[in-house]
Amino acid sequence: MKPLEVIHSSMEKRVLVELKGGREYRGILEGYDHPHLNLILKNAEEYVNGEKKREIEKVIVRGDNIIYISP
Amino acid sequence: MKPLEVIHSSMEKRVLVELKGGREYRGILEGYDHPHLNLILKNAEEYVNGEKKREIEKVIVRGDNIIYISP
Amino acid sequence: MKPLEVIHSSMEKRVLVELKGGREYRGILEGYDHPHLNLILKNAEEYVNGEKKREIEKVIVRGDNIIYISP
Amino acid sequence: MKPLEVIHSSMEKRVLVELKGGREYRGILEGYDHPHLNLILKNAEEYVNGEKKREIEKVIVRGDNIIYISP
Amino acid sequence: MKPLEVIHSSMEKRVLVELKGGREYRGILEGYDHPHLNLILKNAEEYVNGEKKREIEKVIVRGDNIIYISP
Amino acid sequence: MKPLEVIHSSMEKRVLVELKGGREYRGILEGYDHPHLNLILKNAEEYVNGEKKREIEKVIVRGDNIIYISP
Amino acid sequence: MKPLEVIHSSMEKRVLVELKGGREYRGILEGYDHPHLNLILKNAEEYVNGEKKREIEKVIVRGDNIIYISP
Repeated sequence: MKPLEVIHSSMEKRVLVELKGGREYRGILEGYDHPHLNLILKNAEEYVNGEKKREIEKVIVRGDNIIYISP
Repeated sequence: MKPLEVIHSSMEKRVLVELKGGREYRGILEGYDHPHLNLILKNAEEYVNGEKKREIEKVIVRGDNIIYISP
Repeated sequence: MKPLEVIHSSMEKRVLVELKGGREYRGILEGYDHPHLNLILKNAEEYVNGEKKREIEKVIVRGDNIIYISP
Repeated sequence: MKPLEVIHSSMEKRVLVELKGGREYRGILEGYDHPHLNLILKNAEEYVNGEKKREIEKVIVRGDNIIYISP
Repeated sequence: MKPLEVIHSSMEKRVLVELKGGREYRGILEGYDHPHLNLILKNAEEYVNGEKKREIEKVIVRGDNIIYISP
Repeated sequence: MKPLEVIHSSMEKRVLVELKGGREYRGILEGYDHPHLNLILKNAEEYVNGEKKREIEKVIVRGDNIIYISP
Repeated sequence: MKPLEVIHSSMEKRVLVELKGGREYRGILEGYDHPHLNLILKNAEEYVNGEKKREIEKVIVRGDNIIYISP
């Protein structure tokens, strides 16, 4: 299985995205691109160092800050 | 949906751009390029660590400092 | 022997993945891509600075944060 | 509009260039290249953490340190 | 002589690999790839800031964290 | 005008090269390459945080550490 | 003159290689590659923050950590 297939099969589902610098986004995966792994999240929540900071209706997260994506 | 389409559909609308190092820009998206994701913002406000620092009539933000873009 | 062959022969086996910033993931390798070395881990455990933080059913770890992979 | 067009239309005009590490350059844009966005500034002033440090007759700023360019 | 030839001639021999962040691995070189310089080490010892931390039977070290390799 | 032309026209002249990490080199530009912007300086002086550290007869400065070059 | 020519003409001669993170290597240049600028040094001495740490018979220094090379 390829990482991209896992991402593709997570479309329209809730994912957790951990970024560098203690940031985490949880939201519904609405899209992605390849090979950058930029992601579109809908109804997202932003956590900084484990604390909830914002709710964001739609957000494009740049792939190169991502540590991991969990479907 | 591709991240680029979301960016394209945000043209002439207000976006929030979060950069590394605690910087945030809010302004009207006037342009972008691909694949760098450099952005042009008009009537922008710069926030550093949550505090408003400057108003900038027009600004080109380099894509590689961007963490996320929120339409 | 090529590093990729070692990764390939670790498929469906438990691996330890050490990332920058004191993070470590242990889980079953379900997939990878080339040349990015993005990995899919199943039944993963996340350690931060040697302390267990989370169990994650499935996780895609971006290759560019990896320091080493141990089969 | 493309970011490069904004840069091009700023030729021979005063621009503000914000770099990583608290540095800022203000000067007349005399040239640039693509895709690196290296810039030539004339009659430039260097600010570090908001404080004026030097006047520099001509300076080539490497593009990969740039956070934003403001015409 | 090319660096790659030195690496090739170190196959099946003990090497010392110094990484960023005060890490060092000593082990038998079982493989490498080009141009990434990812390495496979067997019977490896991990040192962090000069202190021995672990023994690792097999480890793939990503090339981009390497400072130097000593045969 | 292109940044490279300014560099070319500085050949055999004194330039100031500011690097990341508070380093500065002043010397006569003897050569450069493209697109890396590696530079050769002759009769160079090294400054660290504004203090003169060494005189170096000839030095090749890697381009990717450069913040700016001033002819 | 190109930086690579200076490196080539330093073959079999003593060079000083300054790396990021306060490291310095002095040794006889036995080889290099292009465009990475990985270097082979023989009879090398390692200095960390100006203090001599080790003697290393042969060492391959990865080019991307190099700040400057002085023949």
